Amino acid sequence: MEKKLAQLKEKMRVVEDLELINELLNWDQSTYMPPGGAPARGRQSALIAEIRQEKIIDPEIGRLLDHLEPWAETLSYDSDDASFVRATRRVYDVAVKIPTALIGELYGHFAESYQKWTVARPNNDFKTMQPYLEKTLDLSRKLADCFPGYEHIADPLIDFQDYGMKASDIKAIFAQLRAELVPLVEAIMDKEPVDNSVLFQEFPVDKQAALGVEIIKDFGYDFERGRQDTTHHPFMTKFSLGDVRITSRFNPNDLGDGLFSTLHESGHAMYELGIDPKFEASPLGVGVSAGVHESQSRLWENIVGRSKPFWSHYLPLAKKYFPDQLGSISVDEIYKAVNKVSRSLIRTDADEVTYNLHVMLRFDLELALLEGSLEIRDLPEAWHERYQQDLGIRAPDDKDGVLQDVHWYADVIGGVFQGYTLGNIMGGLFYKHALQAHPEIPDEVGMGQFDTLHNWMKQNIYQHGYKFTASELIERVSGGPLTIDPYMEYLRTKYSEIYGL
Amino acid sequence: MEKKLAQLKEKMRVVEDLELINELLNWDQSTYMPPGGAPARGRQSALIAEIRQEKIIDPEIGRLLDHLEPWAETLSYDSDDASFVRATRRVYDVAVKIPTALIGELYGHFAESYQKWTVARPNNDFKTMQPYLEKTLDLSRKLADCFPGYEHIADPLIDFQDYGMKASDIKAIFAQLRAELVPLVEAIMDKEPVDNSVLFQEFPVDKQAALGVEIIKDFGYDFERGRQDTTHHPFMTKFSLGDVRITSRFNPNDLGDGLFSTLHESGHAMYELGIDPKFEASPLGVGVSAGVHESQSRLWENIVGRSKPFWSHYLPLAKKYFPDQLGSISVDEIYKAVNKVSRSLIRTDADEVTYNLHVMLRFDLELALLEGSLEIRDLPEAWHERYQQDLGIRAPDDKDGVLQDVHWYADVIGGVFQGYTLGNIMGGLFYKHALQAHPEIPDEVGMGQFDTLHNWMKQNIYQHGYKFTASELIERVSGGPLTIDPYMEYLRTKYSEIYGL
Repeated sequence: MEKKLAQLKEKMRVVEDLELINELLNWDQSTYMPPGGAPARGRQSALIAEIRQEKIIDPEIGRLLDHLEPWAETLSYDSDDASFVRATRRVYDVAVKIPTALIGELYGHFAESYQKWTVARPNNDFKTMQPYLEKTLDLSRKLADCFPGYEHIADPLIDFQDYGMKASDIKAIFAQLRAELVPLVEAIMDKEPVDNSVLFQEFPVDKQAALGVEIIKDFGYDFERGRQDTTHHPFMTKFSLGDVRITSRFNPNDLGDGLFSTLHESGHAMYELGIDPKFEASPLGVGVSAGVHESQSRLWENIVGRSKPFWSHYLPLAKKYFPDQLGSISVDEIYKAVNKVSRSLIRTDADEVTYNLHVMLRFDLELALLEGSLEIRDLPEAWHERYQQDLGIRAPDDKDGVLQDVHWYADVIGGVFQGYTLGNIMGGLFYKHALQAHPEIPDEVGMGQFDTLHNWMKQNIYQHGYKFTASELIERVSGGPLTIDPYMEYLRTKYSEIYGL
Repeated sequence: MEKKLAQLKEKMRVVEDLELINELLNWDQSTYMPPGGAPARGRQSALIAEIRQEKIIDPEIGRLLDHLEPWAETLSYDSDDASFVRATRRVYDVAVKIPTALIGELYGHFAESYQKWTVARPNNDFKTMQPYLEKTLDLSRKLADCFPGYEHIADPLIDFQDYGMKASDIKAIFAQLRAELVPLVEAIMDKEPVDNSVLFQEFPVDKQAALGVEIIKDFGYDFERGRQDTTHHPFMTKFSLGDVRITSRFNPNDLGDGLFSTLHESGHAMYELGIDPKFEASPLGVGVSAGVHESQSRLWENIVGRSKPFWSHYLPLAKKYFPDQLGSISVDEIYKAVNKVSRSLIRTDADEVTYNLHVMLRFDLELALLEGSLEIRDLPEAWHERYQQDLGIRAPDDKDGVLQDVHWYADVIGGVFQGYTLGNIMGGLFYKHALQAHPEIPDEVGMGQFDTLHNWMKQNIYQHGYKFTASELIERVSGGPLTIDPYMEYLRTKYSEIYGL
């Protein structure tokens, strides 16, 4: 059995390494590749993807799994070996159930659709995108149908991103969240607006970058095992558990844009860097779900990076970098500025409170499209109606409406949005339990010390990688299922103080 | 036949693309990879090399070659298709003789050894590197032994780099060269030394880099299809015929170091970028040998970059970047300074005349190690002794002794040095013939115009890629075999004038 296990591990090592190699091709394309490299890069990236596909659908993997599973059943559920067999089964089953031709069709269609979207969005041209979205919806359904027996057609697509979750679970928890958020937003809107103009001055980008690096080093992001580069869209990428990099985008007229995206990506990176090194190049060596990943990026960006203790420590440092721009501002003023709540049109610019309303309406629209209760041609108006209903505003056009997010134009419809809000909810829950174990955390944050918080996350979340589902992690931490209460309590306490509710 | 040819081309496309992908893994390791990425990078690089090996030893390639060769024989020798079949046969025959496991072991070992060397060299720590070198020597011998029937154990390793050459050929031409160089060096040493102190002032590295970029853009190095980064050891690398990058190393107290390494690497890059694009991702789409490659890097660095017309044009530009450091210097003075001949310790810093002595002693040490007449543990002292003997000096430590070159720490021992001196000899020969065709070249260089020279090289050398061997290129250009005469004539004329011999 040991020998079969070793064989399977080696086969999966190859599969994982091929994925990690392709990440390097993508990273280089986004960071340093000269324009002349583009045609070959597309060809080479497709080659690695094809070889990875050949390797994962190897029937020998199926045979090894069949042999190993009865033995793995005799082991404790959370043993490394049982977890490895379980994770490999999942990766293998997903791979063999999707016809290679469908994968090709999906990627070909996404590439074309994305290209059209880059032109259609600035032109406010939904009509051009409508047939592409119709095909995307059709392909998304076909993809879901590779996994028959679902309760809701979105379930397989959600499962790709948020392993173990179903549309019905998410609908239930989102309904609770909406019921609490809408009155909170209304209460805040009745109050005097916060002035955040201090953030919108000239901030030289090299200094912005240096400030961000100082802070994420304090967080514990290890530059011996990572680095930061500049790209148009910020992202985190991993080449191994010893090399997890982030990219940031800096706006010379907006301090928050670059700083908070840096903190955000550092959260993603610390999660991957915190996975137990014994899971290197195994299906266990990755963050478990979009939701848990976002719990970390959003926690370090918001719960930490937009907290008062954080700014009481880092405002003096920020003033060293930007004496003219920030010289006269107080901790209280900057704390309020970085937490200004407003009803806005663009998800990625939204504050912590309204952000989830943007996400939840997209999730509902995805479900309606997949169910067939909403047609693509009616989507722009459905979008406007939901913004009116949930946020009290209506975009003047589709450019800042249904065309704003890249996701549906370069990925499937279904499963691509819920992770953002699940992450906020989970982040609130994890933080509450870290705080119960270590009430000194906010004081430490106020001294620029993050070890206690970082170590709690490593111990309870990061180290496990893909071993436990999000629900299992939550159960282990809290003794129960996912609940919105800690997150809502966090929001209510914080914003009541800021807005004097 | 067309169908079989297309099949073979597609198979070789995959092989070539896998090599190019591995180049990206190596480039990233040298430029931006954080230290924590090293173990995985070695493993991933080995994986790509193994898959490349699997693909190239595919017996179907052998069968396709067997089918195509009789047909290719009916074509003209220099037709693209005949050349493709010929080149593929060579690559295939080399590959089938090397066990896949050995390839994997080599790549994995080199990645680890290189990483250790980057730390050991600054620490003057040969002891750490000794076991790595011992393993390298062992693996190098194993690799050579995959090609039994050699005259000298170094021959197969030399053949990888300089196709068609043997240790005995090289020993013969090096003996001629040494016989002419040693008296030339002695004659120069009897003269008043040149003062090159102007080069050793403070030169901010960002300005050095900017100056170098201006010049290589004038040469014709295309930054839409390339870029420059900073590394310990400068190199050129290619990811496709549309993406050929260089790296440089700058020393804030030495203008020549960074500038000439930049010109050097641009010569390598222009060669690859000048290959006919129809050879993209084919065995024909690469420079043909180390010697021909060095003929280009050394030509652009030395024959062009250390010529008087070059400095008559670029001294004013260099003065714009460095008015305080270069303000009072004349063209004659800088021309002499960049051509100062001295007995020095570091190969890459050596002048044109002594440079070959550095190379030839390394070549001899490689042969001695492979023959077993020298042990790795005795290598540092053997190094010192040969420097004493050939150059009359001794390094104070191993950092500037046996640890100075990356080659043995990231590649096989054997075949990796002779190309530099072969390149000098070939560069002299090519330049002589370019000049015969276009006597106006030096005047154009004096105006910062390089198109005539660059186009002659494209036409006669670059475009052909791997189509002709070095000897065939030399034959086509000169009507005869490789001779040291044009190179020695170039050196004698130039240095007689500088030193008044």
